[in-house]
Amino acid sequence: MARCIMRLSIHALLDYRIDAEADVLLQIEAAADEPTQKVIDGKMRVATGSELHPVPVEAGVGRRTWTRGRGPFRVEYRATVEVERAVREIAGLGITPYADLPGEAVPYIWPSRYCQSDRFASFVGKAFGDVEGGAKVLAMANWVHDQLDYVPGSSDGDTGAADTFISREGICRDYAHLLISFARAAGIPARMVSAYAWDLDPQDFHAVAEVWLDDGWHMIDATRMAPIEGLVPIITGRDATDIAFMTIFGRADLNAQSVTVERLD
Amino acid sequence: MARCIMRLSIHALLDYRIDAEADVLLQIEAAADEPTQKVIDGKMRVATGSELHPVPVEAGVGRRTWTRGRGPFRVEYRATVEVERAVREIAGLGITPYADLPGEAVPYIWPSRYCQSDRFASFVGKAFGDVEGGAKVLAMANWVHDQLDYVPGSSDGDTGAADTFISREGICRDYAHLLISFARAAGIPARMVSAYAWDLDPQDFHAVAEVWLDDGWHMIDATRMAPIEGLVPIITGRDATDIAFMTIFGRADLNAQSVTVERLD
Amino acid sequence: MARCIMRLSIHALLDYRIDAEADVLLQIEAAADEPTQKVIDGKMRVATGSELHPVPVEAGVGRRTWTRGRGPFRVEYRATVEVERAVREIAGLGITPYADLPGEAVPYIWPSRYCQSDRFASFVGKAFGDVEGGAKVLAMANWVHDQLDYVPGSSDGDTGAADTFISREGICRDYAHLLISFARAAGIPARMVSAYAWDLDPQDFHAVAEVWLDDGWHMIDATRMAPIEGLVPIITGRDATDIAFMTIFGRADLNAQSVTVERLD
Amino acid sequence: MARCIMRLSIHALLDYRIDAEADVLLQIEAAADEPTQKVIDGKMRVATGSELHPVPVEAGVGRRTWTRGRGPFRVEYRATVEVERAVREIAGLGITPYADLPGEAVPYIWPSRYCQSDRFASFVGKAFGDVEGGAKVLAMANWVHDQLDYVPGSSDGDTGAADTFISREGICRDYAHLLISFARAAGIPARMVSAYAWDLDPQDFHAVAEVWLDDGWHMIDATRMAPIEGLVPIITGRDATDIAFMTIFGRADLNAQSVTVERLD
Repeated sequence: MARCIMRLSIHALLDYRIDAEADVLLQIEAAADEPTQKVIDGKMRVATGSELHPVPVEAGVGRRTWTRGRGPFRVEYRATVEVERAVREIAGLGITPYADLPGEAVPYIWPSRYCQSDRFASFVGKAFGDVEGGAKVLAMANWVHDQLDYVPGSSDGDTGAADTFISREGICRDYAHLLISFARAAGIPARMVSAYAWDLDPQDFHAVAEVWLDDGWHMIDATRMAPIEGLVPIITGRDATDIAFMTIFGRADLNAQSVTVERLD
Repeated sequence: MARCIMRLSIHALLDYRIDAEADVLLQIEAAADEPTQKVIDGKMRVATGSELHPVPVEAGVGRRTWTRGRGPFRVEYRATVEVERAVREIAGLGITPYADLPGEAVPYIWPSRYCQSDRFASFVGKAFGDVEGGAKVLAMANWVHDQLDYVPGSSDGDTGAADTFISREGICRDYAHLLISFARAAGIPARMVSAYAWDLDPQDFHAVAEVWLDDGWHMIDATRMAPIEGLVPIITGRDATDIAFMTIFGRADLNAQSVTVERLD
Repeated sequence: MARCIMRLSIHALLDYRIDAEADVLLQIEAAADEPTQKVIDGKMRVATGSELHPVPVEAGVGRRTWTRGRGPFRVEYRATVEVERAVREIAGLGITPYADLPGEAVPYIWPSRYCQSDRFASFVGKAFGDVEGGAKVLAMANWVHDQLDYVPGSSDGDTGAADTFISREGICRDYAHLLISFARAAGIPARMVSAYAWDLDPQDFHAVAEVWLDDGWHMIDATRMAPIEGLVPIITGRDATDIAFMTIFGRADLNAQSVTVERLD
Repeated sequence: MARCIMRLSIHALLDYRIDAEADVLLQIEAAADEPTQKVIDGKMRVATGSELHPVPVEAGVGRRTWTRGRGPFRVEYRATVEVERAVREIAGLGITPYADLPGEAVPYIWPSRYCQSDRFASFVGKAFGDVEGGAKVLAMANWVHDQLDYVPGSSDGDTGAADTFISREGICRDYAHLLISFARAAGIPARMVSAYAWDLDPQDFHAVAEVWLDDGWHMIDATRMAPIEGLVPIITGRDATDIAFMTIFGRADLNAQSVTVERLD
């Protein structure tokens, strides 16, 4: 078990132009209810003064914020976050039998829009059937890392794990979707986490899988692009549908967008 | 607004044979946390004495129960339920703007495993774009009722709303999935409810859609096979993945299964 | 029956840059074996002098030409074509019973890559079951015209008729795929034709459906963008897979591309 | 190169009951135009005396026969076939460059209903990119054999190669579809052949892939269930859509069906 304390400075900027007035959902704040991190001075604001209406997530970690925008739409989020996460060796953890799963883990054993885990039962049995416990998840993550190519632009909003399994290409969301699908097919609850990531190159919003092992959630990143110790979870969900950093319910054009995560100590 | 009080006697029997010991998830109890019904003397038991481990749902209404089974596996559920539901005219209700949606409704605006609402945006705009408020949902339910044929056996566990939209056939789950997909595509939160249904012929577990209008959930049944006033919700979820009445994580054979809902007064 | 004689001047220019030497398949010549047109002075050449290797189609109308390209790749095709096509009223033609279909029509009753006609049986029965003979095809073409929006960029190389039926958007290939799927689902052989089209705005390669009625093939264009009398068939196939105007088996960049069809008399 | 001469006795029986009069397409005769076999005394007849109308295939090998049926429908086919096929080592053959492919091979480089070869380009490049010539096809067939389980009932009429690649289960048609898809993705023309098969257990109609290498078609069977030397091709096509042994265009019930292939010498 590795313990690591990091103090990170986070800055995210979303600069768009919205044609006609539109509702906007923002999911970009470092999660305040995540026990492994402490958010200091977190502040999100829309430059043009739109009011912000935060609502809780129905389940999991994080919160969502509604606002409205028209014309220039520029959101900034700044925070200092102290991450103190005891990253445990996945391989040493145990799989919880179905009948011992708590209510909060149950929905994550099932397929979702982008994670058609029901279709992978036979493959997962053959490919990972001999590995037990957390080592099974590790073997799955290694498979995903080795078999996929990281190709920006190779997937879109319709791409699910079944597509990625065939095309063997994707970005972080696709790596996470495939790993989540494999885990669920093996009876291991798995959800998706959006996060700020220290030491991610190029810097951007990141997304990884989180699996339920030994009565707790554990993040695992099949892209291996950023260390787990430097992840700052934003929000969790069943798959990418729940955790997009911004959804504009109307037409918008991108001017600029940037994410910066810097270590302070 | 129609008010109606009904006293219903419910009996469900699931009689299976399970090859090797397997975990089982049961979702067959009338929801105790549903304000429009009062469950009296609800009792679920497994004849062979397996222990029952109830867990809460992460969100929505109802609860789940874990157990294990091997060999003969016979579950019985009996309850008396008083339903007092003020069924409001869907057509007279209003659509809540996105930015006013509470946290509990937000996850139900997005696509899910069986409800690929993102693919129906253009069709829904064309077919129902001129109708406002709850009348839009009613028009959608009418469309689903008129365009689909109720054909037992025409769908299976892989069938989603996109398939049903093409095949024009299905059972209650498919009617609900398509209606839910249409509603979400129009920005109206929609979820799925499994329920006992009075006056359903033949008697069976039933499933309907539930939409968020005027700050509350309202059931609507595109099959028109049973009156809303006589529905007894069991559990809610994003779609059929969350609300199956029983999931056996292993091989099993069906001996007998029956549902009886009788009016007592 | 309308008879119409047209003399058309055709010019097509494909100007690309091919990274590394690649095989190229060209299908841009007005069909010489199409009895309703006479090709005069047809000439295709690659500016950079690559040799051309024509091969016959295995079935149907038209021919294919192989060549190779590297660096600048500029193909020109010029021809004068006399079209004398007796366009018959589709509505007055009869459907040939399966068992009377000749060998050349049989493969076109089945689903193909982009025309999953097997999935539309129920819809086609409901929507067009009451219409007989060629009028059924006309009703299908009207439906496709009315229900789809012509939206350039709304489809890609993976889009099939099942997708288009859901999205209700597409370009000429998608209109043809959906009409072909409907026809096949009703037992009417249907294939796809690429064509030069007089009076098409903007000018481009065009594609339409062709159905087997009364022992012959008859073109029908659900987009209604160009008159049948002014179409100059290039090549026929089961769907878009067979009839692409150019396939470069490697990476290439587009410099310019144009099609001009002008009436001479 | 192995040469082998076999004299085989073939008997196929299809015994159905057809509700209302329906057209029927039969594709069960040993191919007379296949140079590696000689059909002696081939005779197909419908017990109830329906007339048979043979039509040529538009391309490839074999022929189709139309008939009609109502009530009891019993077809028998008997033949003696001499097979003299020089089975060449696939590994020693060469891949024909695209631009040298003859017209008869071109349609088989493209995706079809069940063989979505366009989706496998990346996987095929990674998995088989290092193998050259016919050895590439052999490596593909070995992969399909090793990764799939032969599970009767695991696929249906909607199952394509993309589904099989995920589910890792299937029957002979699925093995062939996946191998064909891989070959096409690598630029190797591939089609499907239905065949009678000596030494197949249990006896049934069989289907294998056929690839174009060194200017000719070569059969290869990823199921390894029957020797290539004992195959008697019936008909070829792009995939299963073209080569079903019988298609009844109406409702029918199966009474009995059997295939017997016996060696006479």
